[in-house]
Amino acid sequence: MERQVKVGVLGAGYWGPKLIRNFQEIPSADMAMVCDLRQDRLDHIRELYPAVRVTTDYKELLGSDVEAVAIATPIRTHHRLAREALLAGKHVLVEKPLTANSEEAEDLVNLAEQRGLTLMVGHTFEYNPAVEYLRNLITSGELGRIYYINATRVNLGIFQPDINVVWDLAPHDVSILTFVLGMLPVNVSARGAAYVRPKIHDVAYLTLHFPNEVMADIRVSWLDPCKIRRITVVGSKKMVVYDDVEPTEKIKIYDKGVDVPPYSDTLEEFHLSYRYGDITTPAIPNVEPLRVECEHFLHCIRTGERPRSDGRDGLEVVRILEAATRSLLNGGMRERVRL
Amino acid sequence: MERQVKVGVLGAGYWGPKLIRNFQEIPSADMAMVCDLRQDRLDHIRELYPAVRVTTDYKELLGSDVEAVAIATPIRTHHRLAREALLAGKHVLVEKPLTANSEEAEDLVNLAEQRGLTLMVGHTFEYNPAVEYLRNLITSGELGRIYYINATRVNLGIFQPDINVVWDLAPHDVSILTFVLGMLPVNVSARGAAYVRPKIHDVAYLTLHFPNEVMADIRVSWLDPCKIRRITVVGSKKMVVYDDVEPTEKIKIYDKGVDVPPYSDTLEEFHLSYRYGDITTPAIPNVEPLRVECEHFLHCIRTGERPRSDGRDGLEVVRILEAATRSLLNGGMRERVRL
Amino acid sequence: MERQVKVGVLGAGYWGPKLIRNFQEIPSADMAMVCDLRQDRLDHIRELYPAVRVTTDYKELLGSDVEAVAIATPIRTHHRLAREALLAGKHVLVEKPLTANSEEAEDLVNLAEQRGLTLMVGHTFEYNPAVEYLRNLITSGELGRIYYINATRVNLGIFQPDINVVWDLAPHDVSILTFVLGMLPVNVSARGAAYVRPKIHDVAYLTLHFPNEVMADIRVSWLDPCKIRRITVVGSKKMVVYDDVEPTEKIKIYDKGVDVPPYSDTLEEFHLSYRYGDITTPAIPNVEPLRVECEHFLHCIRTGERPRSDGRDGLEVVRILEAATRSLLNGGMRERVRL
Amino acid sequence: MERQVKVGVLGAGYWGPKLIRNFQEIPSADMAMVCDLRQDRLDHIRELYPAVRVTTDYKELLGSDVEAVAIATPIRTHHRLAREALLAGKHVLVEKPLTANSEEAEDLVNLAEQRGLTLMVGHTFEYNPAVEYLRNLITSGELGRIYYINATRVNLGIFQPDINVVWDLAPHDVSILTFVLGMLPVNVSARGAAYVRPKIHDVAYLTLHFPNEVMADIRVSWLDPCKIRRITVVGSKKMVVYDDVEPTEKIKIYDKGVDVPPYSDTLEEFHLSYRYGDITTPAIPNVEPLRVECEHFLHCIRTGERPRSDGRDGLEVVRILEAATRSLLNGGMRERVRL
Repeated sequence: MERQVKVGVLGAGYWGPKLIRNFQEIPSADMAMVCDLRQDRLDHIRELYPAVRVTTDYKELLGSDVEAVAIATPIRTHHRLAREALLAGKHVLVEKPLTANSEEAEDLVNLAEQRGLTLMVGHTFEYNPAVEYLRNLITSGELGRIYYINATRVNLGIFQPDINVVWDLAPHDVSILTFVLGMLPVNVSARGAAYVRPKIHDVAYLTLHFPNEVMADIRVSWLDPCKIRRITVVGSKKMVVYDDVEPTEKIKIYDKGVDVPPYSDTLEEFHLSYRYGDITTPAIPNVEPLRVECEHFLHCIRTGERPRSDGRDGLEVVRILEAATRSLLNGGMRERVRL
Repeated sequence: MERQVKVGVLGAGYWGPKLIRNFQEIPSADMAMVCDLRQDRLDHIRELYPAVRVTTDYKELLGSDVEAVAIATPIRTHHRLAREALLAGKHVLVEKPLTANSEEAEDLVNLAEQRGLTLMVGHTFEYNPAVEYLRNLITSGELGRIYYINATRVNLGIFQPDINVVWDLAPHDVSILTFVLGMLPVNVSARGAAYVRPKIHDVAYLTLHFPNEVMADIRVSWLDPCKIRRITVVGSKKMVVYDDVEPTEKIKIYDKGVDVPPYSDTLEEFHLSYRYGDITTPAIPNVEPLRVECEHFLHCIRTGERPRSDGRDGLEVVRILEAATRSLLNGGMRERVRL
Repeated sequence: MERQVKVGVLGAGYWGPKLIRNFQEIPSADMAMVCDLRQDRLDHIRELYPAVRVTTDYKELLGSDVEAVAIATPIRTHHRLAREALLAGKHVLVEKPLTANSEEAEDLVNLAEQRGLTLMVGHTFEYNPAVEYLRNLITSGELGRIYYINATRVNLGIFQPDINVVWDLAPHDVSILTFVLGMLPVNVSARGAAYVRPKIHDVAYLTLHFPNEVMADIRVSWLDPCKIRRITVVGSKKMVVYDDVEPTEKIKIYDKGVDVPPYSDTLEEFHLSYRYGDITTPAIPNVEPLRVECEHFLHCIRTGERPRSDGRDGLEVVRILEAATRSLLNGGMRERVRL
Repeated sequence: MERQVKVGVLGAGYWGPKLIRNFQEIPSADMAMVCDLRQDRLDHIRELYPAVRVTTDYKELLGSDVEAVAIATPIRTHHRLAREALLAGKHVLVEKPLTANSEEAEDLVNLAEQRGLTLMVGHTFEYNPAVEYLRNLITSGELGRIYYINATRVNLGIFQPDINVVWDLAPHDVSILTFVLGMLPVNVSARGAAYVRPKIHDVAYLTLHFPNEVMADIRVSWLDPCKIRRITVVGSKKMVVYDDVEPTEKIKIYDKGVDVPPYSDTLEEFHLSYRYGDITTPAIPNVEPLRVECEHFLHCIRTGERPRSDGRDGLEVVRILEAATRSLLNGGMRERVRL
């Protein structure tokens, strides 16, 4: 059996307990210590896992012998806590988005590289078997040339206290898109509105312009009657819908398309031919993506491998969110991702 | 019984036969004459309706004793044919969009007013009982303050030869939105791409900014594996989904929302309360909207009433499409609808 | 072009006009004459098809020069009208079910054979491409050994005046089942109830026992809130769902199953292994089954070929309905189909 | 706070851990001891709940100071273990079905009454808020006279080692039906087949005949490609679909029906009028039914109240399953539930 990695978790609010449960269940992890400012959350954790140490002082956790720290605190605290953890020699997994701005993210990336520590960001969907399947469909060429992607992630609630819907929901889609396409967008534009609370956008639309004229559109909302988590990828040969809300048929591959004639004249439109072929729903393994993510974190710590979603990936997503934020504030104009 | 109105139809391609069939079935219409450039289309019409006169010369139709003319020809011909029909003293129903640009639309509106003739545009969805129901939900205040609307109209094909997807599909949603909201957008922006044929957009996203911070987003595409025709209206009290593809449950009213506390402090987020109430699917009468539209056209001719979708409405939709086109070409910047 | 067959239609109520429209549209048919007792129905037909002769006297139709007669009248009249048509030397297509009892059906079968005329029954679903696809899946062995079939055909209404729900809806499923399985049931049992009108069953369940232990269950109801038309075929290798209400994904093939170990011991249950493989939705041609049926009828008349759904098939379905009726009245006991 | 009841659980296979987790989370329960024959299951439980005592000897558990015992072992052991528990003075909750036959069930009911102990059976669905809602719809008269109920509970697997699909899946539907109707069936018939393993039915159809001509049909299968858990209740005024697989819209109430005229003549069929009214999806509280069940068990122990699903209910369900089994073996004939 692999040697156990001693793990501490900072933050036991909504996401922290999921990390704790997974590290608890993974044989090669020793889920040792949890920190949260609220005593009632710590009581709850201790009731579930009596063997786990708890503290309200994160310095106690960073000063302990845990080898790795997972951070699931409010975003504004990510940079400070991750920085201190790295300085204390810990490997770090930070919940998405990595930080509140790109300067902070760059600082963490540099620090981790200097110290030779693993820095990973919790882009959980990159560890989702359906998303991996989608990536393989794209990179294998089965879909042909990729035209565009449309992504929707909406629901009623849960409103976040300190960030808007772009920073809350869009990191999922942005990390999925850059992962499955294997490239980064050059420009981003965004439109949105703040209805429930002043100045905190609860509805937004992002447009990402990738190289090769690939366009991606993302709709995020905390104000929608239905839970929709759906990504459509349209290629020249085939089209795919990935519906994360579907219990079993998450991916549908449509052998559909328009075949364009090689030449072109004034009547070309009448030569367009449509294909309406079979639909295939591949069997996707039923695993918990967060479990895969946690195991990957431990694996990278042990081997020194670069994580699939490393600090640089986290930095790139933050840059995209920043560009989207600039566009939101300037009336929807395109913003370059790299200034 | 009401007196019969003698009707002629210009264009017997895709849409024309539907108009012909409806005027044929309406007792108070005398479906008298059809014009098309292609003899095979006329042969087809004569086979179906032996009593209908056919011609390849539109001047023959305009010179006949028909009282009203319905125009279902390519958009670039709308203005010329409608103009000549009005000059010949005919009442005119033009398929959507009314014309290829706003100057043409204004000309028709002015001409019809000068001559005292009925000018109507075929915004068929305004005669759809589900859309009327949606309008009543909004204007009655049942949904509370309207926040935003999201509309999707996508499918694989049918590519139009001479216009892009914005001018083909978006007129439906633009006319629905202005009808149900009872107001016009001030600014429009649009993004899109042309994948299958050069310079003819086959995928586009429009954002319409209405007064009172109401935002509407429209997604149209000729390149999508699924047929989706869905409009979500989010209000402060209730939310509605209108799904035109659903055979029976076209409208769903969600008694869902977020209640904001009257005061606000640093912890306000914890005071947000969510309502997850009943869902109601009202019974919607099952009528053919085009039948209602044709009967309304005849009614306005007889009574001199202004049509629900009159020339001015057609002009407003064309202005919005023009603004969207300008935005498409300038990188997605907001464009004022009225210059 | 093939020579035209002159066709007459008896009955212009609900189904008759569909036959008339199809024969009207098929180039190799001459839709010549229609008979109905109600003058208003004939007026309607004449308005739609001015060239078609109409009469209230079926003897006039049978005495005319039509070569083929399609019968879409109430079931109790099928035998008499079909008999007279055959005696008058006409080829005959009778709506399903062929007759009100098996004696009548046998009489028609014998008469048609004696006279060398085509006798066909309108088991329309046998001409449905999805049903043909299903049959091929079964007969090719792709599903493995067929275990059982479950069929549901329910809706609210339309109550028939003179027959119960078994004779109204079950003929569809019975003809589909015998067609796709390529065999006839040995025993039938049925249970049901009459809620809305005394003694006329509006809800019923049939169980058909085929050779090789293949079991099929059919649920029919005029009293259900949802329109369901769904057939599940479970084989040892694969399973199929045919959902006729689905607009595009009518057939889904599930690569799912339970693999049984070759030996058996007290713990065999722990050795059962489940397969959860891909789902495939084949593209099914979009044709009107009734059009295919009408063309097949004309083809058989011209060539003398035996129709896919000939009089004998109609007789077998009537025998199964009779056995189901006997079981309905005797408390649900199994009845042999052949006495 | 209520006094804590000390609870022991027999069986830690599939269902036992769910009971253990719930008793662990309920403040008024002291989840004290777990027994299973397999040491690995006990190790697993101890890892999750280090404070819980474990044993492979049920006599140790029955001899301990636990006040209540929950039994989640194979059905053939239910009677012996429940009997010994009652003799040891413990209150008992037995997983459904209560016992393997009605003699055993009667013995337990009598014993519990003699000893004044709570005997409850785990008909979990009776504690499901959607089922309670359905019961209220029926008993309030909102649906009118109840005509019939159709229930489907199918899936691929999980095959049980020692019982057939009737004893595995039908107890859910039988207990739901008797609970929502508030009455017991008089006759039962059943049909089925054993495809995967000899003599163990994996597919079955039950018909239950209740007083007042209410008919209920239940379809259960371990061999179906889709997971369906759906109950349709048809009343004279309204109809309801309860779909347990739906994540949010579990109950849909259809204001649909057929109105029969008060008199009857030969043309009565033309006077039938159909109502196609609104559909309502009530908001159903999102609670775990097993949690409600466990709390109810504890409440009854404390107060001496008779449980909603007491031993007698368990006995009645077993009697219905026995009648179904007799019918399965005699070719589907109706069997009286009470001999």
